[in-house]
Amino acid sequence: MREALKEAMTAFGKDEVPVGCVIVSGSGIIARAHNLTETLNDPTAHAEMQAITAAAQVVGGKYLNDCTLYVTLEPCPMCAGALFWAQIGKIVYGAADPKRGFSLSGASLLHPKTIVESGVLAGESARLLQRFFRKKRS
Amino acid sequence: MREALKEAMTAFGKDEVPVGCVIVSGSGIIARAHNLTETLNDPTAHAEMQAITAAAQVVGGKYLNDCTLYVTLEPCPMCAGALFWAQIGKIVYGAADPKRGFSLSGASLLHPKTIVESGVLAGESARLLQRFFRKKRS
Repeated sequence: MREALKEAMTAFGKDEVPVGCVIVSGSGIIARAHNLTETLNDPTAHAEMQAITAAAQVVGGKYLNDCTLYVTLEPCPMCAGALFWAQIGKIVYGAADPKRGFSLSGASLLHPKTIVESGVLAGESARLLQRFFRKKRS
Repeated sequence: MREALKEAMTAFGKDEVPVGCVIVSGSGIIARAHNLTETLNDPTAHAEMQAITAAAQVVGGKYLNDCTLYVTLEPCPMCAGALFWAQIGKIVYGAADPKRGFSLSGASLLHPKTIVESGVLAGESARLLQRFFRKKRS
């Protein structure tokens, strides 16, 4: 999650909503990304979406069953839907997203086999986001 | 929708699940795409995702409030989540997707301002999908 936070900080430096993630397979990171919706002018360019695309190229297949995604913020329904298609093995997220988190949708959007862990470095992830939005408002 | 069906037929010819879409702004098509998940080895490469990215480049902004998406199959939660971020004005879809359609999720995944119309050329869209899966099984 430390590596995902580094990605989030890179996003912060680019004036992007600071969310970062990495995808791990075995003991190594196979993909890393941060939110780039403003830079790319693309509403689909969330950190997770880019990382899924990159990881699929590394593993040479559409399915990421043996991979873990570490992401600083709870994924939104779009990203959860993509993680469903990728059949990701495990998701570890930091801060909860009370506005657009996937867990708000009653029916689970994730693959039934996906394991979810939350709250890892949640404070640091949330503080970075708060700093960003405070800066934006000022 | 005829144009979206043409895209779906192109996908069929590439041995991809035949789903196609176009995005219209004013009276013209500004983006068109078909499912490419196999060709690109990318679980996120649904027709709608590609078309949203392309349309955002054309309009020069992340929001597609004045656009209509025509898609041959009901969008999945991933694509619905992307259409939420894009704040798409209207969605017109063909066949319903009883397995992975966004409408299965109790809470609406779409933006509250998005208008939805369904069943347009639904028979043709569904028959093309049935032909594809029949061919796959044989």
